[in-house]
Amino acid sequence: MSTSPTLDLTLELIRRQSVTPEDADCQQLMMDRLSAIGFRCSEVNFGEVKNFWAVRGESGPLFCFAGHTDVVPTGPAEEWSNPPFEPKIIDGYVHGRGAADMKGSLAAMVTACEKFVADNPNHSGRIAFLITSDEEGPAVNGTVKVVEWLQQQGEHIDYCLVGEPSSTELVGDIIKNGRRGSLGCRMLVHGVQGHVAYPHLAKNPVHLAAPALAELAATEWDQGNDHFPATSFQISNIKAGTGATNVIPGTMEVIFNFRFSTETTDAKLRERTEAILAKHGLEVELDWNLSGQPFLTAEGELVSATLKAINAVTGRTGSLSTAGGTSDGRFIAPTGSQVVELGPVNATIHKVDECAKASDIEQLSDIYAEILKELCG
Amino acid sequence: MSTSPTLDLTLELIRRQSVTPEDADCQQLMMDRLSAIGFRCSEVNFGEVKNFWAVRGESGPLFCFAGHTDVVPTGPAEEWSNPPFEPKIIDGYVHGRGAADMKGSLAAMVTACEKFVADNPNHSGRIAFLITSDEEGPAVNGTVKVVEWLQQQGEHIDYCLVGEPSSTELVGDIIKNGRRGSLGCRMLVHGVQGHVAYPHLAKNPVHLAAPALAELAATEWDQGNDHFPATSFQISNIKAGTGATNVIPGTMEVIFNFRFSTETTDAKLRERTEAILAKHGLEVELDWNLSGQPFLTAEGELVSATLKAINAVTGRTGSLSTAGGTSDGRFIAPTGSQVVELGPVNATIHKVDECAKASDIEQLSDIYAEILKELCG
Ligand SMILES: [Zn+2]
Ligand SMILES: [Zn+2]
Repeated sequence: MSTSPTLDLTLELIRRQSVTPEDADCQQLMMDRLSAIGFRCSEVNFGEVKNFWAVRGESGPLFCFAGHTDVVPTGPAEEWSNPPFEPKIIDGYVHGRGAADMKGSLAAMVTACEKFVADNPNHSGRIAFLITSDEEGPAVNGTVKVVEWLQQQGEHIDYCLVGEPSSTELVGDIIKNGRRGSLGCRMLVHGVQGHVAYPHLAKNPVHLAAPALAELAATEWDQGNDHFPATSFQISNIKAGTGATNVIPGTMEVIFNFRFSTETTDAKLRERTEAILAKHGLEVELDWNLSGQPFLTAEGELVSATLKAINAVTGRTGSLSTAGGTSDGRFIAPTGSQVVELGPVNATIHKVDECAKASDIEQLSDIYAEILKELCG
Repeated sequence: MSTSPTLDLTLELIRRQSVTPEDADCQQLMMDRLSAIGFRCSEVNFGEVKNFWAVRGESGPLFCFAGHTDVVPTGPAEEWSNPPFEPKIIDGYVHGRGAADMKGSLAAMVTACEKFVADNPNHSGRIAFLITSDEEGPAVNGTVKVVEWLQQQGEHIDYCLVGEPSSTELVGDIIKNGRRGSLGCRMLVHGVQGHVAYPHLAKNPVHLAAPALAELAATEWDQGNDHFPATSFQISNIKAGTGATNVIPGTMEVIFNFRFSTETTDAKLRERTEAILAKHGLEVELDWNLSGQPFLTAEGELVSATLKAINAVTGRTGSLSTAGGTSDGRFIAPTGSQVVELGPVNATIHKVDECAKASDIEQLSDIYAEILKELCG
């Protein structure tokens, strides 16, 4: 049962089983539609990852839709009340893997352009798409590489709208205008292995580290600011011992992560962490991994146009937020682009029975078209 | 190259690959030798575990040799400089799995009886053997079951000499006249799983538990006493997280163990632990496992006879100790027996290239025979 061009395209995209890094010809479908309305499309593949870049217009400020065709695995398919790759509209909701993250957004981007170009064949500026099939995976051969490729050609994105599901209850209630940084670490705490009956011959790394972990967990790293929540420290994994109950382990592995605001830096967090570990006399190996600096589009044409478009279509006043996980916006913002994220309600993403309200997806197409009118009209 | 009846029998026993719960006919060999000098032998098997009981003499105080024919696995056989089950005497040391723990002791027990019985065919009291093939394993169908079986028959052990390798540098320098208790616990700490980017929606069990673990590790449980070192708490295993670095784990598992003195009890340790966990507001499931109460043979005929025999054979003054791991003495002492442990130097037990000094094993046979003279002469 089809209801609108945007929903038709959403269902068509969900039917293609594009679990990362598969694209399953989603991109070809999008390029076919965009070519038909005058976009010049380029495949920009790296390794097994498919990406494309499409652009319409000859000169002037560049507005870019960014997103991903890949989806996360379904988990146990039998737990889905409707098969994840056989999308259906049930009680007004599109059900299927990717409905919210982010095939609904991709469809809305395409149909927004179709409407806008029909009305404005000679729009000002340029409209582009930067689409990858590796956002949910390692994110090594996706957006980050396409951004490098654009820079090599001297191409600069002025405004970037990422279709990530930013909304929490109603479409457009939240737009993301930045993201916290993410700094990870794999820590190996060294002790001395031994037998539990001879503790004086051993050094238990769990005992040695417990006060330091308690202090790290209790530390206030900053208080955040107007745009960012406070920096947060979380231990995701901890492991020591072989299973034997009479052996004091020789080492302990702890994996932790900072989500950090612009009130601190990755260098300061590393330094403060290392000072706490040293204060407790721990002998450690640290393997740090910075997966993204924080970024922020505090204000500007893109934020204004997005808030105005949401209001025009829905009557709602969107709020700005930088909470939540990382997105490919982290690769685009450092080039100096204004970046916002706006997509459907994110309640079911990455879960069994992922779904998105059908009317939200249709409204999203209208909102995207309004933004185009603002910036390229 | 054979050198003495005790060493011959030691080598013969090591050649039988009796990794727990295998006995590999070690017990048959012992029973053959003991039957030949007038012991009445009974196989007392439970499940797949072989045990035997042998007794000589009709009435009077019962002196019992206790021990095990099973050995721990060899680990990587290629790391042994001599194959673990092809025993050899090299530079005065018997090399092979079980040389120290405890086939040398078993051989010394048998040859001590052979010498003693030859000289004292009508000895006073009774001499017995309680031998299992499940000391190094679960210890469920071994000594504990044989002790129950003896009790059902109204049989009581007055003096028990366990052949565990008690010595640290020279044979007889240390005898164990008791052991600490052992209380284990598997603890599950409950939190609430979530995404590291949304910590306010989760409760990280690692963060919640860290201060409690630090306090448990720092607590002085007692100061020990003249016979026992202080009670010790050790975490042997800790685990939380699925490997994913962006997920806050929902639960954490911690396995810990107390080795405790007679200054406290397992009930008090459970109570104090639970109070600390409650103080820190942890929601936990605790699965306690008492594997042995502490026991002590502070003084008496057996300790005196053992110290006297060591001095008579070696000229040394043995020291009493309750340090170290558990042994099957924990099953025998609660019946009211005097229990001591005396065996070879324990430096290489459970390790690659396990070995025992050949002259120590021969002296051990003489010491055991002296003890028999003292108590049954
Ligand atoms: Zn996404
Ligand atoms: Zn042993």
